Amino acid sequence: MTILTLLTDFGTEDEYVGVMKGVILSIAPDVRLVDLSHQVPPQDIRRAALLLMNAVPYFPPDTVHLAVVDPGVGTERRPVAVRTPAGTFVGPDNGLFSWVLARVPEWTAVEIREPAYRLPLVSSTFHGRDVFAPAAAHLAAGLPLEKLGPRVEDPVWLPPPRLEISDFVAEGEVLYADRFGNLVTSIGYLVRSEDTLALKSAFGSQAVLPVFPAGDAGVVVGNVQLRGIRRTYGEAAVGELLALVGSSGFLEIAVRQGSAAAALGAVPGTPVTLIFRLNRG
Amino acid sequence: MTILTLLTDFGTEDEYVGVMKGVILSIAPDVRLVDLSHQVPPQDIRRAALLLMNAVPYFPPDTVHLAVVDPGVGTERRPVAVRTPAGTFVGPDNGLFSWVLARVPEWTAVEIREPAYRLPLVSSTFHGRDVFAPAAAHLAAGLPLEKLGPRVEDPVWLPPPRLEISDFVAEGEVLYADRFGNLVTSIGYLVRSEDTLALKSAFGSQAVLPVFPAGDAGVVVGNVQLRGIRRTYGEAAVGELLALVGSSGFLEIAVRQGSAAAALGAVPGTPVTLIFRLNRG
Amino acid sequence: MTILTLLTDFGTEDEYVGVMKGVILSIAPDVRLVDLSHQVPPQDIRRAALLLMNAVPYFPPDTVHLAVVDPGVGTERRPVAVRTPAGTFVGPDNGLFSWVLARVPEWTAVEIREPAYRLPLVSSTFHGRDVFAPAAAHLAAGLPLEKLGPRVEDPVWLPPPRLEISDFVAEGEVLYADRFGNLVTSIGYLVRSEDTLALKSAFGSQAVLPVFPAGDAGVVVGNVQLRGIRRTYGEAAVGELLALVGSSGFLEIAVRQGSAAAALGAVPGTPVTLIFRLNRG
Repeated sequence: MTILTLLTDFGTEDEYVGVMKGVILSIAPDVRLVDLSHQVPPQDIRRAALLLMNAVPYFPPDTVHLAVVDPGVGTERRPVAVRTPAGTFVGPDNGLFSWVLARVPEWTAVEIREPAYRLPLVSSTFHGRDVFAPAAAHLAAGLPLEKLGPRVEDPVWLPPPRLEISDFVAEGEVLYADRFGNLVTSIGYLVRSEDTLALKSAFGSQAVLPVFPAGDAGVVVGNVQLRGIRRTYGEAAVGELLALVGSSGFLEIAVRQGSAAAALGAVPGTPVTLIFRLNRG
Repeated sequence: MTILTLLTDFGTEDEYVGVMKGVILSIAPDVRLVDLSHQVPPQDIRRAALLLMNAVPYFPPDTVHLAVVDPGVGTERRPVAVRTPAGTFVGPDNGLFSWVLARVPEWTAVEIREPAYRLPLVSSTFHGRDVFAPAAAHLAAGLPLEKLGPRVEDPVWLPPPRLEISDFVAEGEVLYADRFGNLVTSIGYLVRSEDTLALKSAFGSQAVLPVFPAGDAGVVVGNVQLRGIRRTYGEAAVGELLALVGSSGFLEIAVRQGSAAAALGAVPGTPVTLIFRLNRG
Repeated sequence: MTILTLLTDFGTEDEYVGVMKGVILSIAPDVRLVDLSHQVPPQDIRRAALLLMNAVPYFPPDTVHLAVVDPGVGTERRPVAVRTPAGTFVGPDNGLFSWVLARVPEWTAVEIREPAYRLPLVSSTFHGRDVFAPAAAHLAAGLPLEKLGPRVEDPVWLPPPRLEISDFVAEGEVLYADRFGNLVTSIGYLVRSEDTLALKSAFGSQAVLPVFPAGDAGVVVGNVQLRGIRRTYGEAAVGELLALVGSSGFLEIAVRQGSAAAALGAVPGTPVTLIFRLNRG
């Protein structure tokens, strides 16, 4: 059974997600549906793109990922399907997939245009139901990508989050707060090896790849300075602010058993600076 | 695998939904469970009835829809199962299914009374677990409807939402705001053909079936007047109020990339008026 | 298909739950996933333990229950898997399973230590993904429990909620408010037979097992006194406070078609007293 994941900003109060699943299962009764999230803040394409980037590596490569965060529904924005070695993606061509695509060696994109793979009536406000769900279901059921429509060579590409790395400093921003109030930042990937961290840009190539000791690095967010990048929450006292490497490789600011977002009043876009001393090998 | 959908006002904080799924899978291990929503406002039968009405057409007709919004649990209200050409329905007899039933040519309802198809102990506060989930599971596993209990000829019928159509005016009400703050109204179905709209009552027969140009129709909600019924959000400026036909055929009031509910302070029951000029063939 | 349930405090805004499902389905493509809840208040082990206790009896005994409420992630707390006649449990060794284990005649616990059944890289902040999901998936796919690691004889045990039963009085506390604002208390199990209730401790053995008439029992919560334990919400007027036996056997305080939590301002820990007259056979 092929896995088909769903990511939307539809919430779960309304019938929208259930209706998409009805459409999918009517076309591909054997797919296995997995919800990634339906709580993306309304029309927040960047948040959805980050979520996909973090989730996709944990699914089998024959998974179809359906993502509908679609402020341009009903306008000229193209519906697309993209096949990559990491998975197949279906949704509006508004940048949702750009950070997934930045990490794969190759991809093929098509515009979803063939009427046979849409619902008979296409509304102008719910392409999730009328265009994207049917296309994703047909792909999960084995339809070759090219049947959906013509090639797209220039999908919309999101600008990457802020991350500037120089010899001793990386300047980034808060991307979002997760449910626990942990502040996930654009500073990553951070890869730990014993007491040393290596920093690569998660969103593109980067000439400087600093390697530095975790213990004496400093993190500045708002007017707060934190010393050292910890290994885990348990290295801080209950209620203490700490910096650590989150589970997807990004620098995070957390409060042990509390909310860093509440403690710092930080929001998406708040600047975060990492100051480090290079490891002289 | 038969699909079994679940619609409740139980929320997802507690174990209630999971427990119903445990009961169902213990009886019918092969059903495919799909959540329609568990975020119906507590005891809001009308909201659940609307949600079902909008969702059911997108599921295969052999689907079993289990709906539990049940303020009368433990009282004399009957538990019912209803078979229709559009699906099979299980829940309390309080009107949940009336707007689905209004649209199908025929239906057969029974009272769920046979102890063999309930849990051994029936509580007086959680029939979702003890009565409805087992009945739905048995139906999904192939039990003939009549085995559950005697025929019901007079199920409870909800009064339809307000909609009065005269020659030049349709008077309705706000039904609810969806997650995006779009105000869904009782004025529908609106069916578009090029620049013309046809209006039928979604909740019953209606002698007058006006057909009118979309562009010069007017919509009044609260003390705001909107000109024209647009095709999609993108026809308005960001932040602008607009009227359009929603994905289920109802007149909706929206703010492009914003919340009409917040902008207008409208709530369920707020009057909405559509003013139109008849199309003289 | 084996059922694998998930219970976390991860919420559904982030990718965390979806990622765990990706990991599980990559290992055990045929399991059937059921969400118990992901809305446990952050790091509230007691709430999760209660939820499990109430949900587990409704699932087949070969179900694997994965529970991740894990304030000690990355510290020395052990990851465990526990097999019982009521189900198999996987999660951190912090007491999550103690109220399930208190009710089963026997259990076998192991520490999850074998690297072959983890992800290749184990982060220090997301063992749900790296340790618990893989272990649960392998168990659901048939791995013998002992393969995961060495026996654990002394799992962490939560202290039970307050419940002191004497001849005429049971003193307990509010455990939590459910979505409807019903206050679930530690006074249970209450088993009804006609107009009589029997009271047993749900969390351990209890010498006194009083049996008493429901109608003239009194309940005191805060400065409110309620007379009689009702059978169902419908026995109260709309808006009236009432005491009744909830669907899992605990004394509950409710408001018919309203919220007792809001009406009483009660929170977890608020004392609740049940006063009863013994039934002289």
